[in-house]
Amino acid sequence: MDYQRYDRIRAVQWQGDHLRLLDQRRLPHEECWADCRDAAAVTRAIGDLVVRGAPAIGIAAAWGVVLAARQAEPLEPVLAMLRAARPTAVNLMWALDRMKARIAEGAGAAALECEAQAIQDEDLAANRRMGELGAALIAPGSGVLTHCNTGSLATAGFGTALGVIRAGVAAGRIARVYAGETRPWQQGARLTMYELVRDGIPAMLIADSAAAHLMKSGQVQWVIVGADRIAANGDTANKIGTYQLAIAARHHGVKFMVVAPSSTVDMATASGATIEIELRDPAELLSTGGRRSVVEGAEAWNPVFDVTPAELIDAIVTERGVIEKPGEAAMRAMFGA
Amino acid sequence: MDYQRYDRIRAVQWQGDHLRLLDQRRLPHEECWADCRDAAAVTRAIGDLVVRGAPAIGIAAAWGVVLAARQAEPLEPVLAMLRAARPTAVNLMWALDRMKARIAEGAGAAALECEAQAIQDEDLAANRRMGELGAALIAPGSGVLTHCNTGSLATAGFGTALGVIRAGVAAGRIARVYAGETRPWQQGARLTMYELVRDGIPAMLIADSAAAHLMKSGQVQWVIVGADRIAANGDTANKIGTYQLAIAARHHGVKFMVVAPSSTVDMATASGATIEIELRDPAELLSTGGRRSVVEGAEAWNPVFDVTPAELIDAIVTERGVIEKPGEAAMRAMFGA
Repeated sequence: MDYQRYDRIRAVQWQGDHLRLLDQRRLPHEECWADCRDAAAVTRAIGDLVVRGAPAIGIAAAWGVVLAARQAEPLEPVLAMLRAARPTAVNLMWALDRMKARIAEGAGAAALECEAQAIQDEDLAANRRMGELGAALIAPGSGVLTHCNTGSLATAGFGTALGVIRAGVAAGRIARVYAGETRPWQQGARLTMYELVRDGIPAMLIADSAAAHLMKSGQVQWVIVGADRIAANGDTANKIGTYQLAIAARHHGVKFMVVAPSSTVDMATASGATIEIELRDPAELLSTGGRRSVVEGAEAWNPVFDVTPAELIDAIVTERGVIEKPGEAAMRAMFGA
Repeated sequence: MDYQRYDRIRAVQWQGDHLRLLDQRRLPHEECWADCRDAAAVTRAIGDLVVRGAPAIGIAAAWGVVLAARQAEPLEPVLAMLRAARPTAVNLMWALDRMKARIAEGAGAAALECEAQAIQDEDLAANRRMGELGAALIAPGSGVLTHCNTGSLATAGFGTALGVIRAGVAAGRIARVYAGETRPWQQGARLTMYELVRDGIPAMLIADSAAAHLMKSGQVQWVIVGADRIAANGDTANKIGTYQLAIAARHHGVKFMVVAPSSTVDMATASGATIEIELRDPAELLSTGGRRSVVEGAEAWNPVFDVTPAELIDAIVTERGVIEKPGEAAMRAMFGA
């Protein structure tokens, strides 16, 4: 397919001596770039959601290690600091483990730079491969619904779930795209719609609450989402609301696809039951557009991920292949351990 | 119970010669009152969501007819204008039918004023009765989740679903209250949390998307919602997202209660399949807090109601009594033809 047409955003850019991040908090209003010149700045950028999306977080963290190595910082504390920036995305741990292994081999700053670049390049290649594999599952003329942002902004480029959507649109398999807003952070409204409009892909934004009503209308044949962590049995942690979509999809006979690079698979986690779910500041729900929208004195509960059990998932797509009706045996056959 | 404690907001107030409405678009930031001095102003207030909530809309419309009668306007066009203000709430049609019947009997402005006052007073009494009936269904120590706003702001006072919650909290049956934000208009975040905090009822706001994750945690035993129209078979039209909650509730064995005055029951509508679902301006989704939040060129689909089929509802509570496992026969037995 014509990747040039769909592949123009690069949210994580290594500049040779510092890391440039497209500040995703300010999209779509402003395209601002944040320059991170040390590992602490990268850690803050991850925690504050300047960069988000499990693969992009992992890539940014790898560059954070490179910055520390170039400045001759002790690397063990830097690895620990980056690891703690966000708890749910396993790609963060995976990328840091890769960097740590190179450090253990005695790699210097230049070799670590090569490793970070490899992580980034492999992610882009994986996304393109997943796009092909996922799109092939979709019958021509289908409608799809996605959640959160899993596109170029969340990855090295092209995207995971949004990569499948791009490939499906390009191949004429996907005729209609719907995107849920993804409260409270509005990744769907602000970021996914931004990517889709930039690519000229016709899409409709919906309230997260409207998904079941949309499914009932018959306009949607697949829900396609990314993942922050996939356990050894196929249980998948992803943006809050994913689980609710999976339940509604099953209720309506709509298929449910998870798309993520194999670095998102965590065979050391037996099931979703033990995945730590990040709780973020209630203020994210109590304010809207920077202004307090809820009465003073009100409290909020703000889990930002949930776990979708494998039995609600029809297909897990990684760059290694497709697992239909995922379960422990099929996962082990593809991912080992 | 001590209604004074829970019953202080009156959003629809007849002032003897005009109608005062608490402007619900500006809550919780400002308590602004809109004075409607003719039926056209009442129609605009309904269409623009100054007043919302199916019972409150019906009451406001009845007062609109009174204003027209006092100004000797021809009443037939006024009835038609008010009727068209919002399509889904059957209480609007019901209240106008009551006024129309009095007009047909030759009632003058004074008699119409009495009828409007009766509609308002009966709604408050119905809410208190429903509060008792609904709360009695809930086991002590339960957690509940509600959606949208169904409280004093949406009714003549006390509320429908929120009335059951008030009564359940007062009776010690409800230990935890969760409220969904209710995008795009944020009735849960802005209005329900405002009422709960004013009443000193501890409550947690959640993203609409977090409901299934909450249910899985076991913190919630009932979902309690209002209704805009209940069909003859028990199918219920209510705020967008209600259907999605009902599916998630059934998946988790959480019970689902609909609370609405009998004026919400529309025995002339056989099932939910023929209920007109209001589509509102996509701009409600494309802007947040008055500011465009989605990239220019993006489109949105903004249905503001959905239909929950009767088979997902465990109890329909009206002031006439409780229907458990609602269906056509039970509905006909309670509401006739």
